[in-house]
Amino acid sequence: MESLALMAGRPRKAEPEVALAAAMSAFWEKGYEGTSMSDLTEATGLHKASLYKTFGDKHQLFVSALKLYFSKTAQAQKVSRSGEDSPIKAIKKSVTSTIDQCAEGKGCLAVNSLIEVAPFDPEIDRILKQFRQRLENQLARLVEEAKERQQIPASINTNEAVRLITVFLHGLSANMAAGMKVSKARTLLHDQLDLVLLPKKKFKRT
Amino acid sequence: MESLALMAGRPRKAEPEVALAAAMSAFWEKGYEGTSMSDLTEATGLHKASLYKTFGDKHQLFVSALKLYFSKTAQAQKVSRSGEDSPIKAIKKSVTSTIDQCAEGKGCLAVNSLIEVAPFDPEIDRILKQFRQRLENQLARLVEEAKERQQIPASINTNEAVRLITVFLHGLSANMAAGMKVSKARTLLHDQLDLVLLPKKKFKRT
Repeated sequence: MESLALMAGRPRKAEPEVALAAAMSAFWEKGYEGTSMSDLTEATGLHKASLYKTFGDKHQLFVSALKLYFSKTAQAQKVSRSGEDSPIKAIKKSVTSTIDQCAEGKGCLAVNSLIEVAPFDPEIDRILKQFRQRLENQLARLVEEAKERQQIPASINTNEAVRLITVFLHGLSANMAAGMKVSKARTLLHDQLDLVLLPKKKFKRT
Repeated sequence: MESLALMAGRPRKAEPEVALAAAMSAFWEKGYEGTSMSDLTEATGLHKASLYKTFGDKHQLFVSALKLYFSKTAQAQKVSRSGEDSPIKAIKKSVTSTIDQCAEGKGCLAVNSLIEVAPFDPEIDRILKQFRQRLENQLARLVEEAKERQQIPASINTNEAVRLITVFLHGLSANMAAGMKVSKARTLLHDQLDLVLLPKKKFKRT
């Protein structure tokens, strides 16, 4: 991660946004517990006093970083949908963009926080749940549209399909944090989408 | 978590094993970074000097705790297979036992460590990879057996099926760490198994 202290000539007004993005990267890289205040001052190029003044304590800075992460994700979702008429293609683009985002850091900051922070922190838990609900609702709307357009069988249970996709994404994120390549993750994701969004044959077990 | 200091009358010989189990629970509950030496002395009922003498430093104690966790998992896998003639039933019992183990703590200690520790710790990364390989090999053997017995279609790709099941288990673990109920996790897991182990119909997209 590049220290902002090394960067020159940036417009003064942009500083808090740029510092927040750097803090987000630090938390993404090292986890909440693993990121010290000195990691944060180094990453942002701000002194401790300025950090506190601008963002509050480490916890408040983490909340802001998580919200920035979510706005990046929401933006990527919007891009997936815009200019894409086919709902099934929009689903593929949307979940693939999630995987690509995981590849930028150590897995997905939201999934990492689900394990590391949410069990002990009701505020983070609430923010993560709200965000996941919003993503699941978007995905559910696309699945419904795909059913209406007969791109996928009407017999598919929308809520179940969405859950099977998102839980799988969380599993991929954990594997990507530990080094799974983005190309491998994309292949598995597309296998999973085909499983979830195509009908099953009857098969008589012996 | 019950402090061992509160327990009386246990046989002296069992102490290191009992202390290690208590340390494992502490790491499972709070994560590697989140567990302090004073958490470990409290959980095990041992003084810091005794802990160091018996198990080495925090990192070595964590390695031993992780190995204990894996031997518990391997034992549960063995039980799933013994007395179970049907490979498909053995697969279901085996992955269900993984979920049940996640429900004992904050998700699965191995998946938590995949995210929190493995990216920064080559030794833990290596131990986790070895263990996952062993579990995947066991699952692959069962999938092959189920194909031979015509319990599942011969067309299923064994390695792909195993990967889709294990990645999904990792995702469930992350959700269970953040509070998903074991009953919900079991339902989703069985949905996923049905998707992975039953054949797909042809479906013509419009």
